[in-house]
Amino acid sequence: MLKLLNIGMIGYGFMGRAHSNAYRKVNNFFDVQHRPVLKAICGRSVDKVKAFADQWGYESTETDWRRLVERKDIDAIDIGTPNNTHLEIALAAAQAGKWVLCEKPLAMNGAEARKMVEAVEKAKVPNFVWFNYRRVPAIALARQVMDEDRIGRVFHYRATYLQDWTISPDLPQGGAALWRLDAAVAGSGVTGDLISHSVDTALWLNGPIQSLTAMTETFIKERKHQETGKVQKVGIDDACLFLARFANGALATFESTRYARGRKNKNMFEINGEKGSMYFDLEDPHRLQFFDHGDPPHLAGWRSIHVTNFEHPYHKQWWVPGTTIGYEHTFINALADFLKGVETGKPAQPDFRDAYRTQLVLDAILQSARELKWVNVNPG
Amino acid sequence: MLKLLNIGMIGYGFMGRAHSNAYRKVNNFFDVQHRPVLKAICGRSVDKVKAFADQWGYESTETDWRRLVERKDIDAIDIGTPNNTHLEIALAAAQAGKWVLCEKPLAMNGAEARKMVEAVEKAKVPNFVWFNYRRVPAIALARQVMDEDRIGRVFHYRATYLQDWTISPDLPQGGAALWRLDAAVAGSGVTGDLISHSVDTALWLNGPIQSLTAMTETFIKERKHQETGKVQKVGIDDACLFLARFANGALATFESTRYARGRKNKNMFEINGEKGSMYFDLEDPHRLQFFDHGDPPHLAGWRSIHVTNFEHPYHKQWWVPGTTIGYEHTFINALADFLKGVETGKPAQPDFRDAYRTQLVLDAILQSARELKWVNVNPG
Amino acid sequence: MLKLLNIGMIGYGFMGRAHSNAYRKVNNFFDVQHRPVLKAICGRSVDKVKAFADQWGYESTETDWRRLVERKDIDAIDIGTPNNTHLEIALAAAQAGKWVLCEKPLAMNGAEARKMVEAVEKAKVPNFVWFNYRRVPAIALARQVMDEDRIGRVFHYRATYLQDWTISPDLPQGGAALWRLDAAVAGSGVTGDLISHSVDTALWLNGPIQSLTAMTETFIKERKHQETGKVQKVGIDDACLFLARFANGALATFESTRYARGRKNKNMFEINGEKGSMYFDLEDPHRLQFFDHGDPPHLAGWRSIHVTNFEHPYHKQWWVPGTTIGYEHTFINALADFLKGVETGKPAQPDFRDAYRTQLVLDAILQSARELKWVNVNPG
Amino acid sequence: MLKLLNIGMIGYGFMGRAHSNAYRKVNNFFDVQHRPVLKAICGRSVDKVKAFADQWGYESTETDWRRLVERKDIDAIDIGTPNNTHLEIALAAAQAGKWVLCEKPLAMNGAEARKMVEAVEKAKVPNFVWFNYRRVPAIALARQVMDEDRIGRVFHYRATYLQDWTISPDLPQGGAALWRLDAAVAGSGVTGDLISHSVDTALWLNGPIQSLTAMTETFIKERKHQETGKVQKVGIDDACLFLARFANGALATFESTRYARGRKNKNMFEINGEKGSMYFDLEDPHRLQFFDHGDPPHLAGWRSIHVTNFEHPYHKQWWVPGTTIGYEHTFINALADFLKGVETGKPAQPDFRDAYRTQLVLDAILQSARELKWVNVNPG
Repeated sequence: MLKLLNIGMIGYGFMGRAHSNAYRKVNNFFDVQHRPVLKAICGRSVDKVKAFADQWGYESTETDWRRLVERKDIDAIDIGTPNNTHLEIALAAAQAGKWVLCEKPLAMNGAEARKMVEAVEKAKVPNFVWFNYRRVPAIALARQVMDEDRIGRVFHYRATYLQDWTISPDLPQGGAALWRLDAAVAGSGVTGDLISHSVDTALWLNGPIQSLTAMTETFIKERKHQETGKVQKVGIDDACLFLARFANGALATFESTRYARGRKNKNMFEINGEKGSMYFDLEDPHRLQFFDHGDPPHLAGWRSIHVTNFEHPYHKQWWVPGTTIGYEHTFINALADFLKGVETGKPAQPDFRDAYRTQLVLDAILQSARELKWVNVNPG
Repeated sequence: MLKLLNIGMIGYGFMGRAHSNAYRKVNNFFDVQHRPVLKAICGRSVDKVKAFADQWGYESTETDWRRLVERKDIDAIDIGTPNNTHLEIALAAAQAGKWVLCEKPLAMNGAEARKMVEAVEKAKVPNFVWFNYRRVPAIALARQVMDEDRIGRVFHYRATYLQDWTISPDLPQGGAALWRLDAAVAGSGVTGDLISHSVDTALWLNGPIQSLTAMTETFIKERKHQETGKVQKVGIDDACLFLARFANGALATFESTRYARGRKNKNMFEINGEKGSMYFDLEDPHRLQFFDHGDPPHLAGWRSIHVTNFEHPYHKQWWVPGTTIGYEHTFINALADFLKGVETGKPAQPDFRDAYRTQLVLDAILQSARELKWVNVNPG
Repeated sequence: MLKLLNIGMIGYGFMGRAHSNAYRKVNNFFDVQHRPVLKAICGRSVDKVKAFADQWGYESTETDWRRLVERKDIDAIDIGTPNNTHLEIALAAAQAGKWVLCEKPLAMNGAEARKMVEAVEKAKVPNFVWFNYRRVPAIALARQVMDEDRIGRVFHYRATYLQDWTISPDLPQGGAALWRLDAAVAGSGVTGDLISHSVDTALWLNGPIQSLTAMTETFIKERKHQETGKVQKVGIDDACLFLARFANGALATFESTRYARGRKNKNMFEINGEKGSMYFDLEDPHRLQFFDHGDPPHLAGWRSIHVTNFEHPYHKQWWVPGTTIGYEHTFINALADFLKGVETGKPAQPDFRDAYRTQLVLDAILQSARELKWVNVNPG
Repeated sequence: MLKLLNIGMIGYGFMGRAHSNAYRKVNNFFDVQHRPVLKAICGRSVDKVKAFADQWGYESTETDWRRLVERKDIDAIDIGTPNNTHLEIALAAAQAGKWVLCEKPLAMNGAEARKMVEAVEKAKVPNFVWFNYRRVPAIALARQVMDEDRIGRVFHYRATYLQDWTISPDLPQGGAALWRLDAAVAGSGVTGDLISHSVDTALWLNGPIQSLTAMTETFIKERKHQETGKVQKVGIDDACLFLARFANGALATFESTRYARGRKNKNMFEINGEKGSMYFDLEDPHRLQFFDHGDPPHLAGWRSIHVTNFEHPYHKQWWVPGTTIGYEHTFINALADFLKGVETGKPAQPDFRDAYRTQLVLDAILQSARELKWVNVNPG
């Protein structure tokens, strides 16, 4: 028997769509005991929130998240709003005993994140952070390869997350679609947006980062602000690079930018170990490259694994071998894992505590970039 | 105001899922006037049809398609059953004044297809064939490139559709999941299944095929039959190859097989023209390769276009640039086009008449392979 | 102790350079007992032949190949001239007891080739045909993979040889650089030039071809002739395609053209077998792709083997792992093999007899294309 | 009329072969006025030096480089010996008025390099450093693209040089073939060997580096020494990574290692600018990838340029379009440029002064890695 799970979604932007789609689809494809119900959507604009409710089939609307959190008919609060709102909503939701799902990054900084961890742990409510890329089947396969000990001692980790959509100086900052360029709302630029994904994946695959040295840059110094209409100083980082040393001894480079012309979504990582190597690029998300040093020397080569077989993570739930799934499926897979985690008592990761550790790495990055020196990462 | 469109889906197998998913999602992503309603699902097994209805939210079930076709509360019949049932159902549905959507290939042969065309045209009902790959954004972009005259006079067309899932002689034929290996049910093997896709795409991109010479092969001559439990002769073609000449003078090779070890879904085509060339491979469905002879000679090269920008077909409806969609979206895109076609009076293609022409090419292929000689294609 | 081998090279064009380079380099890289000496270069133009001798260090020049063949100080005749001259020169050279090395294709047709085989076998002189691509390390590795039985029963073979250099109608035919467009001199177009390479490789890797059906086309019907200055009918085939059945039961497609815009030298083949598959493309000559069905299902994928290790064919003779060799090295490797073959009494292939079998396939192709019907190949 | 240039080559190892091959071939392919003569080869082992002379056709041998430098019949000294010998030989050769060609890196450190610059400039002798990769046609094309201003303002530069040949702890250090693992002889590990190539290319393409922060690592701490037979501490760096800021404002990551399993020779760079981007990888040396932001948005994509046309750098000298050259040709191209530079009075780069600047970056890298802080680069 399916248990209804009444969702209160906050935010009707891009993430509002992605999460709503996940709630609508999860039961068509996964055997989970909970059935999400699109109970209420919350956003500041009355017109937009109503239009969104129509489009997605929400039963009701709210324009004040505080009212939503108080509603007795809501089981779970999903925070899909900009970064500077996460703390307050999450604390209220936890206090109200709601399940809390939160978009990444968890918070503006480690201090905020810590409060959020404490709140959900005190309230003992299921909690989850939407670092959706862990549920790309190829990345989940990479984790499986690590677990199977096919890489051996890790020497190197390198990651990039490259985009090119903010190169034009005519692009304004702030407002609905461009809040990620407004430091007051986003906290940081690519560090919180892109490199947080790279760090989440790296910690999951390769364990803790011990120390790092970083640099950031803001290439376009001033942009018109959407809301004030004025040209204002840009406070975010357009690019962020760092060198790091993992606890397991591996050396690493990380780089993220929105100024890599021609790179649309190059969320790439490569791991080099004694026994093998792996390479992933989100621009070809259905492939994982794997080099196995155990192959006969004359036949060794990088394998391009088309991660679409029934043997691969998540794919038995979807279509047939050889057919691809896309971006949105990472959210559906994540939701299924989250629900199964609640049902089995083995919480899916990253929960708030796990995402807090990523936040601490972001803190170290920003500190290092400010001070231009090596920084030890707070292990959390 | 959305018009409700009550769907009667026949078949709860793989295509039943793919089509149901399209009906459930189309209004979340496309601005069409019709809202499909999952009114009834029809299949032979009572238990399975009920389970499917639960999973997908169908309001009712049927186990006899004739009853479904007679129901007054059904607007559209969607035929997702094996090939040998298409004719009868389509004729009944058209006669009952229902819209008819039919899985590919349209029929067992050209003669059947012709009757189906006549039926829907006589009944003047909207009709459509699910050759879904025309709605892969990259293939739609290929068509746009042709329309923009960036290829010029076409010299060569080559297409393959390669899979490897029937190599094991232990795989039985017939029954629910394996009816495609049973000639009585499927009509042909890869010719109707795979090469029909290649032909549909080819005719769409490059116009009619005039003549061809083909060969087919059945590598595994006998397989156990799922239903009889006996080892029986295999009647389908495991592989089909042909050379062809298009009406525009282009020379072509086509090849399809389920015996290409390591190729999961290599639905590939390449077009070489005086001004440029294109290459597509369904294993990387989000990419189109394009060579432009107009580029400066020292900078000319095959461009790998990541077909995920707002400027690309269908992508404005989906997520953001750089994020991919998958296999299932081709059905949703197709459904949106079909509905818009009804709404605007410009029927989306391929309708039954268009798919009939593909069927005539399949007839010519099978005839040529039997007689081992060049055959002219009936233009239809 | 090195034995001097006095070379009489006929032809100072492109192949004259490639062969001369091989003679000059082979002893620097291979341990063979013979040391080729650039004794004489022969060509029709006095000026050009002298300039070539200067550039390459030939000790003497000739303008009449008959005089060269008669010279006592010449041990080996290398035929680097257009196809319509091979027969006469080879016969004279064999009769004079010279070793004979001949550019591909061996002859204008099978009948000529047969006479050449008889001549060298009667004279018992070492003989060799420069199908140089067998000595691409990656292709030699493909042969090794076949020998190691890693592919199993072969189901499919497909090959293309695509170029784009004759698309312009302004390109003349005939004369020094463009004799390949003159049917009287070349015999055929892409059939003798390109598809002969594909056939040589195919027979070597996959055994005899039993039967085939072919089509050819001449896209540009008339071109100015370089020598007559007049616009004349073009007699060569611009493109050639065929389907075939191998003696081992494999089905095949072959295609060659000089009208594939953007393809510079796409000499590609793919073999699909029960146990594995291979893919090669001369545009990336240092790579062989290999799919091994024996890999764990979740880790199976096409391996891109960088064929530059010491374990790979020929590479121990060259530089270090990871460094590539190029086009010219295929000739040097071939020469080394030829000399070793003479020295060990195990003649390197293809000798004239082996190349004769390829010629018979070419005959069948041209006959089939003329008659538009399936043709059995004379096994030779 | 060709001028003879008598070469005295020091070192018969890997570089001795590569340089000798260049001397032997340059006149076959390039129109230069000088004709190198293989006058003398010098090395410490009498047997080996004689064998090498036989293999390559050197007229004489020496076992003491001082005698070679003194010989009147030698015009040019080519230093192909380990790094710790460059200074002394170059100073003597310059003093003797010889031309000096030197393997990279120029010296053990900047101080040595400076003395060498002063010596050749004082002596006014032609001088050159064999940073051969500048003469990979695709890299030369990258420079041309920069010169044509197709990249615009540069935001990012990233480079890796990844190999995997020293992962085994059983590999000894020191001795003939493995001197690169012996810090006393090599000065550093991958910094002088691999990252020096990356830095040379980067400075050439993107101008001076202002500041950087680096880290190095020695993964295998002890190895047996080939000459002493004892297990000794390893003094070289196995891996070297740094972040940098270029004078033009670009941000950069550099990484080199011999511990990247599966990477044979991944000398990669990518440049991202406002107008376009480029990507190169030495494992596919005949390709340059280029993204042009000026392409129509729906057709923009990374172009894979097959750098083998007559329009491309160096290729007119070699074979025909579509045919590749290999590793050894970078040395021949470099030699031709060097000779033309002498002949035209416009010295080919990098000469000693240019390579000195690269050496200063290496100094900064090693200092930063020792002190774990940002370091400004001495502009030289």
